[in-house]
Amino acid sequence: MGKKKGNLVVGQSGGPTAVINNSLVGVIHEALTQRAIDGVYGMLHGIAGVIHEEFVDLRCESAETLELLRNTPASALGTVRYKVTDKDYERLLQTLIKYDVRYFFYIGGNDSMDTTHKIHKLAVDRGYELHAIGVPKTVDNDLACTDHCPGFGSAARFVAAAVRNTGYDTRAMGDSGPIKFVEIMGRNAGWLTGATILGKDTPDGGPHLIYLPERGITEKQIVADVKRCLDDYGFCVAAISEGARDTKGKEFGKSGPAEKDAFGHERKGGGIDYLAALIKEELGITARIDKPGYLQRSFGETISLVDREEAYQAGRSAVRAALAGESGKMVTFERQPGSHYAIEMGLAQLSKVANVEHKVPAEYINEAGNGVTEAFIEYVRPLIGAPLAPYGRLACNLVVKH
Amino acid sequence: MGKKKGNLVVGQSGGPTAVINNSLVGVIHEALTQRAIDGVYGMLHGIAGVIHEEFVDLRCESAETLELLRNTPASALGTVRYKVTDKDYERLLQTLIKYDVRYFFYIGGNDSMDTTHKIHKLAVDRGYELHAIGVPKTVDNDLACTDHCPGFGSAARFVAAAVRNTGYDTRAMGDSGPIKFVEIMGRNAGWLTGATILGKDTPDGGPHLIYLPERGITEKQIVADVKRCLDDYGFCVAAISEGARDTKGKEFGKSGPAEKDAFGHERKGGGIDYLAALIKEELGITARIDKPGYLQRSFGETISLVDREEAYQAGRSAVRAALAGESGKMVTFERQPGSHYAIEMGLAQLSKVANVEHKVPAEYINEAGNGVTEAFIEYVRPLIGAPLAPYGRLACNLVVKH
Repeated sequence: MGKKKGNLVVGQSGGPTAVINNSLVGVIHEALTQRAIDGVYGMLHGIAGVIHEEFVDLRCESAETLELLRNTPASALGTVRYKVTDKDYERLLQTLIKYDVRYFFYIGGNDSMDTTHKIHKLAVDRGYELHAIGVPKTVDNDLACTDHCPGFGSAARFVAAAVRNTGYDTRAMGDSGPIKFVEIMGRNAGWLTGATILGKDTPDGGPHLIYLPERGITEKQIVADVKRCLDDYGFCVAAISEGARDTKGKEFGKSGPAEKDAFGHERKGGGIDYLAALIKEELGITARIDKPGYLQRSFGETISLVDREEAYQAGRSAVRAALAGESGKMVTFERQPGSHYAIEMGLAQLSKVANVEHKVPAEYINEAGNGVTEAFIEYVRPLIGAPLAPYGRLACNLVVKH
Repeated sequence: MGKKKGNLVVGQSGGPTAVINNSLVGVIHEALTQRAIDGVYGMLHGIAGVIHEEFVDLRCESAETLELLRNTPASALGTVRYKVTDKDYERLLQTLIKYDVRYFFYIGGNDSMDTTHKIHKLAVDRGYELHAIGVPKTVDNDLACTDHCPGFGSAARFVAAAVRNTGYDTRAMGDSGPIKFVEIMGRNAGWLTGATILGKDTPDGGPHLIYLPERGITEKQIVADVKRCLDDYGFCVAAISEGARDTKGKEFGKSGPAEKDAFGHERKGGGIDYLAALIKEELGITARIDKPGYLQRSFGETISLVDREEAYQAGRSAVRAALAGESGKMVTFERQPGSHYAIEMGLAQLSKVANVEHKVPAEYINEAGNGVTEAFIEYVRPLIGAPLAPYGRLACNLVVKH
């Protein structure tokens, strides 16, 4: 079973990551070893490539190109953000049949898992033998049924480095610029915002404050938190989710025109700009802002080697699963017990993954809602690969005043 | 001459860089070899450390710490943004005399060179033998009398990598997000914005547009430029200086309340946000934005090894110059003729450097004002160290439609 000879098609979907091409190369490399697989096709711009019958012949790609892609961020086949309609699915299946596609791999997040699931179901309904397997991918790390998602580790490494670097800068500035807010991706899930904790390399270093979207927080607490950091450390570095919100669940800065904040002031600007304006009004100090934006998911120079290898193996594993007869499943990572980090690949039903958001659980967020717990640090530490290179600090023995 | 035994003091000033500690370590290492130098003191937070008599004993720092500092961004001694007053100078000199300081090194930009120059002059006036030498530092690369400035090369490497990475991401997004604007530091000088060109690794890759503050540009041209890129490449990546301005010299987004733009629309938000709103209105497409902010000057993971070594040697060179009797000078880099990149260290009068802004000359900016010239690329290429690691692109041979 599952050995029906036919063509393979693979696509990349949703937001790119720094290692998503490793999953693509993993699929290709494994496909090239399998006799049951004839054509190895890539969808241009994800499912849109199937709709428009735009496939590229991946057997034509050189080994050198594939090797380079292992260090190349963003989706080499192009990606798409398109919500597939019910009407599309019938056509998608007909296209797969027309191109004799028996092996379907979609590298993406929970929307893409939904697409893969529906294609799988339709093929079953129509009695067409198709092996459809999802390969997880998201810097948001919000897919269910897996310990973590390929792409997250590299984004985590970048944001940890970013917050450490800008934190050192902020410490150096002293009174000339003592507050730094860094906006982190993940509107609904705070995994990446939490991962900035790995940039903290001294007890008094940043990030001092971490605000995740899972836990609402009052403006008064934020002001008090920042003030306490200034008092304790002389500077304050905060990692703030783009989806940080108040205790009523409303995102900061999404207040509509002329709405007043808890302090009775009007303020404009979204999210982190809003909070910086809050600090300026309440403490009289300008909070400087970094918005690394899309660098978080694309910065090739800080790829996590663990993430890179896992993304690759996820691709290979997906092909092996399909060849073993599986369909309607997503590759998962299962962390193995023991003191050394290790994962095993598994499979989960796509129906349990599709459209589900796996958020940061309560035990990973500290009581005050402004940081993460030791359990979270243990969870996330191995995913960024080797620790960040050590930085130095002067001992600063003061010369006795004359 | 210049061998009067005494203490040395060194400070870091202005915005930190990723390699400014190399200049500090260079000063320390060289000082430790010089018998004429007794105490090796560091100013805490630059000149404020002299004013408050807060000096640290750098002879107490371990060799290991100094080695770590060579890879540690931001000013290890702390920095300061403080405009020294005339009244301060008398006190500064008295403090230097009180601490028997004969060697004074200040690592900074043009403000700091002014400070160093004034201290030098006052010492001469008072007949106090002091050797005051400036060590250049600025990611803006805007100091006069030197080929380039330590700190610039590493920031240039970061922004080149950043624009390349986010450019690959933008290309992958296709119609789902085809425009990316990246805000680059340097309000008055576009050296760093121009350096993003080193992230362009294919003829159709980004950055497609580079807007420097030296050359005003109309909003209509920006809209036309972006539209042309979309037509030609299917996506558009623009590196935009935080000081980008119109042909009247007014920075975009600095229009005051309710002022209307050239298109008769009201728009709010500064700089790059303003231009993104312009594009949204004129082309109906959302331009996505990255504001890497302080990461540009602090990202330790992308230090240019050329920059790192030059910053170090600038520190050593400053001490040797002082020991040779010099004062009132800044260390400079003189690029040597020939096909291989090489520099020699020189010295310039601080009076010629203080408060002067060296901007990007006309021959480095293209005619249209939306890019840089080959001459600029030749100038900047060696400063980022080794080229960025190569990325891969699929050949994308299309499968014949069935």
